[in-house]
Formats: sequence, C-alpha cells, structure tokens
Amino acid sequence: MPTRLPPGPRGGAAGPRTASAVHAVRGAVRRLLASAAAAPFRGAPLVVACSGGPDSLALAAAAAHVARREGVAVRGLVVDHGLQAGSDEVADRTAAQLAELGCPARVIPVRVAGGGGPEAAARRARYAALARERPEGSLVLLGHTLDDQAETVLLGLGRGSGPRSVAGMRPVDPPWARPFLDVRRATTVAACDALGLVPWRDPHNADARFTRVRLRTEVLPLLEEVLQGGVAPALARTARQLREDADALDELAAGVRSQVEVDGGLDARALAAHPAALRRRVLRSWLLDAGVAELSDEHLRAADRLIGEWRGQGGHALPGDFVVRRAHGTLLVEAAVRKPPNG
Amino acid sequence: MPTRLPPGPRGGAAGPRTASAVHAVRGAVRRLLASAAAAPFRGAPLVVACSGGPDSLALAAAAAHVARREGVAVRGLVVDHGLQAGSDEVADRTAAQLAELGCPARVIPVRVAGGGGPEAAARRARYAALARERPEGSLVLLGHTLDDQAETVLLGLGRGSGPRSVAGMRPVDPPWARPFLDVRRATTVAACDALGLVPWRDPHNADARFTRVRLRTEVLPLLEEVLQGGVAPALARTARQLREDADALDELAAGVRSQVEVDGGLDARALAAHPAALRRRVLRSWLLDAGVAELSDEHLRAADRLIGEWRGQGGHALPGDFVVRRAHGTLLVEAAVRKPPNG
Repeated sequence: MPTRLPPGPRGGAAGPRTASAVHAVRGAVRRLLASAAAAPFRGAPLVVACSGGPDSLALAAAAAHVARREGVAVRGLVVDHGLQAGSDEVADRTAAQLAELGCPARVIPVRVAGGGGPEAAARRARYAALARERPEGSLVLLGHTLDDQAETVLLGLGRGSGPRSVAGMRPVDPPWARPFLDVRRATTVAACDALGLVPWRDPHNADARFTRVRLRTEVLPLLEEVLQGGVAPALARTARQLREDADALDELAAGVRSQVEVDGGLDARALAAHPAALRRRVLRSWLLDAGVAELSDEHLRAADRLIGEWRGQGGHALPGDFVVRRAHGTLLVEAAVRKPPNG
Repeated sequence: MPTRLPPGPRGGAAGPRTASAVHAVRGAVRRLLASAAAAPFRGAPLVVACSGGPDSLALAAAAAHVARREGVAVRGLVVDHGLQAGSDEVADRTAAQLAELGCPARVIPVRVAGGGGPEAAARRARYAALARERPEGSLVLLGHTLDDQAETVLLGLGRGSGPRSVAGMRPVDPPWARPFLDVRRATTVAACDALGLVPWRDPHNADARFTRVRLRTEVLPLLEEVLQGGVAPALARTARQLREDADALDELAAGVRSQVEVDGGLDARALAAHPAALRRRVLRSWLLDAGVAELSDEHLRAADRLIGEWRGQGGHALPGDFVVRRAHGTLLVEAAVRKPPNG
C-alpha cells in the first residue's frame, strides 16, 4: 500500500470542500501558535504526536506546512503501543509518511500496563512517552478534534465528576497543544484526501468494547437525530464557556483561600461570606493539600455545612482517616483519633 | 376506575421499598420547606401543581402530609390543557384524588397557543395559569424529579445554549419550588403504590414525536448502558455544581459591571483586567439592557475582542441593527447608521 497517493488536482481545480479542508487545518495550527497561551513556546521546535489516523496525519501535514512558512523546526513522534499485531509496521509506515511531509519522525515503542481499563492504560503510557521524548521547551501538538471534545464532555457529564470534567480539553495545556478542537473530524479526513495522504484506520476505533467508541458510534448519532443536529459543536461550545467559568472561579478561589487561611486552618466566618462555588473550591484545594484524596461531592458538602449550617455539630470523617471539624470559628483537618484495639 | 386503591399493609408489614419511598417523598418536601431559599414563604399556603401523573400525585400526597403536620394550608391546582380527548375527566378525577388526600383542588382549563412547538406552548400556558391562580405570597410545588433534571441538562447541553442551560432547574425559583429534584421518578411511582394512589399515565409521555420523550426513552437508557449506570444522578449532581458556579459568576459580574460602567459605556481597560468568564457576563448583561436581543456566543466573543485583542479594529454588528465599538478606551453600543436608500 502506498503511503501517499498522488494528490488531487491542485489549486483552483481542487473541489471546494477538500481545498477548504486543507485551508481549515492549516489555519487552525497557525491560530493556535499565534495564541497568547502558546507565546512561551514561540520559536521552539514543534512536535506532532501522530498515530497515523486521519486527525493526527492532517495535523502533521498542517504543522509541517506552517513550520516551513514560519521557519521553525518540526518533528514527529509515533507511539507504538504494541497492542495489535503489526503495530510496529503501522508505526514505521506512519513515520515514513511524516518524513515525506517534511516532518522527520521517530517511533517510540511503549509498554502498556496498569489499571483503569485498556483505554486509560494506553493513554497513560502514550502521554508519558511523549512528555519524555519531546525536546525541552517544545509544545507537543495532539490531533483531538471537535468531535473528540464532544465525546469527552459527554463522558465527563455522564460520570458526574464535576464542572471541570464537563469543561473538556484545553487548546493549550503545556506541553500539550490541541489546534483542532474547533475542527470537525470529517475536515481532517477531507484534508488527508486532498493532500493524497492515506491514513491508517485503527480497528480499535470500531471496537464496541470501548466506551468512547460507543459514545461516538451510538450515543452521539442518536442524540444528533433526537435534537435535530448540531450536537457536537454545541457540546464543544458549552465546554469552552464552562472552561472559562472554571478558570475564573479557580483563580478567584485561590485569592479567597489566601485571605481566609490562618495557621493551616480556615476562618469559617470569613469563608461563609463567599458564594458556595468559591467555598467549595477553597475547601477542595485546602483538603487536597492536607493529603485528603478521593474527595466526593458529598464530602465537600458536609465540610461546607460546618461553615454555612453551623449548629455545633461534630467533625465529619473524610477518606484516608481524616476528620474535618470546626473549633472556635476555625475549620481544621486532622488525622482521625482511632480507638486502640480492645480499647 | 377507583381514584384510590386500598393501600398495602401498613407500617412494619409494608415492603421496605415502598415504605421508604413514602418516607423519601415526605422528607424531600420537608427539607425543601426548611431550606433558606423557601424561608420568605414560611407559613403561607402551599400550592401543588398536579397533572395526575405519579410525580405530582406523590408530591400532593407528601405535601398534604407535611402541611397537616406543620399546620399550614395546602391546596391543589390541576391544569387542563384540553389537548387530548377526555382531558377534562382526567383533571376532575385528579382533583378528586387530591381532595381525598386532604388537599382541596381546583381545575384550571387553559388554551394552548403560540409557537415553539407543542411542548413549549403547553408549558407556557401551564406556568402562566399557575402563576395567575396561586394565592399571593405562596409557593407552587412542582413534581420535577431527578430524572427530569437529567433530561433538562442533556437538552441544554445538546442545544449549546450556555452554562446556564446546563445548570438545569432550581429547587426554589419563586413562585416555583421543586422538592423532588433529588428524588428518582421510580420513587414517586413506588410512593403512589404504597399509598394506594392510582396515577394517570399521560399517553404523551410515550409519544416519540416529543424530544423529551425520546431523550427519556432512548438516549438516556443508551447512555446508562454505555457508561454502565449512574448517569441520571451524575447529570443532576453536575447540574447543581454548575448552578452554584453560574450564580457566583453572575453575582461577581454584577459587581464588576458597576465598577466599569461609565455613562452607559464600559471602561475597556478596566474590564480587560478581569477573567473571560466575567467579561463575557458583563458584556451580555450590558448589551441585553441596551436592547440587543438574541446574542450568540460568537457575538459576545467579537465584542470581547474589542477589549482583549484591541488593534484599532472597527465596530461589530449585532442583531437588531446595533453596533458595538470602541472609542477612546470606552466600549459603546449604538444603533447602526444605515445608508439611506439610493444613498
């Protein structure tokens, strides 16, 4: 199988759809690099993480084009998870495609291990390898599209893991950068087509054992049908607004915490004057810093009742044998006193 | 058909599931009435809006019980939309059921008209009638459950109408109060069963022409299956957190607006110092007050670029022939100057 087909007729003769797809993916990379969040990385080599799929292959092509115009170095990293027979060949072929695009690439074999399901384990291994292999001070471009963002939001919402998880992925979250969060998956496919690039089709992307695959192939299409279209862009748009909301509240909560924290405790009366959304965030960051892990919504609400619904109640037990309690107007978190055995 | 069956064996002999369902619905009404948000309505008569379905029938039973204990008056309002043959009989039968529960009820016939689809028109007519017919100073209890909340959140998210729509319904939004937002629909069914109440089954609730019915019967069950359960509570939990977030940001934005508004314009440099989530809310409320309706996400982002990405660009056109522009460091909104015909 050739790594690159002869591209379709160029310029004015190319179909408007495919020509505009190439324009769209290049523009997305250019805009991301020009954004304020990417400023600290300006001039550093660009790294493209590429699986060989249409999203990251279009990304590599766009990044190579933009890098050439802007005079910065670009290179590719192709992670071989070793989970499917022939994955090494797919990786080598992808690296060869990237080299042809003017984006010299290297294959990184990784070992996938650990808990949390096969998707999570592969993701962990991939990100660790990319972070380790990237040149110091460079951004690693990832091919996540608007459709991936919609899936992420739906997943976070369905799991109820709070506003931050519904806010989806960030365009720039150093060292990661995602230029395609406003680009549809279909546009990356069209861009590959227009550029004569033959992407790899990961059989995992059609494997209904994976939660994300079922969201993509069953839930989102049904939701699109029931709500009469526009669902993926709507999810992505809401995610962006929620991200801005969460950023603002996190920043404001950090300011409040610095005002109400005294000797490691929190001034309950001072904290009570702030809205629930800020109290919750102050409590959360304070408890996490004290070593309390796995905080649930219910734990935070119980701690908050010591502030807003104070009637002299006792302490509230938290995971990891911690207790949060109120004494003399101050919230304290400490290790629970355990009864000695037979005591 | 009898309006009330003989209740199952009472007390200790009742199944734990049904006995606890009655306990749950009564507790939910009691907690709502004891909440700070309901305080201004304490002692006023309680009004229950009842369709005859399991949610609002369980609500009427619980409210009648709690009202009797707390010595406040309770009454029912049954809206007859006149959209189905025999709707008047259903309404009369429901009013009779409520009276038997110790909740004297009145039927209000309404005329459903206007645009936005049959669901929206019926809802508008119903709320208007309830608001008009309730005694001054009273809360109107509505039977929305946790499952309704989950549907509302998914609907808001899929339409992309911003953080506020994903935040769902409020427990207290005077004159409306929703004691069951943490109660599952199945619990209201079990409570009716335990109390020997035979609810009405609205055929519209199984009519796949309605968006909400398809969300309930197709999308949410599929999402539950794919994410392995817990989706409706997760959506409701996230909605509550997002509601707190949105409330805090709205309050903070009102404070910022009062600082940066000068002679009807906004001090762009002062506003630029605030995070995007607050700038967006200040712009939104300021433009709405100026008479600009139907503001989209894109309009707000364009106005925001005059603040954060100022390079001397021109004004930005807004719906209704308005223009927002920047002059001498101040953001102004004004009617667009139209060219005269043939001018």
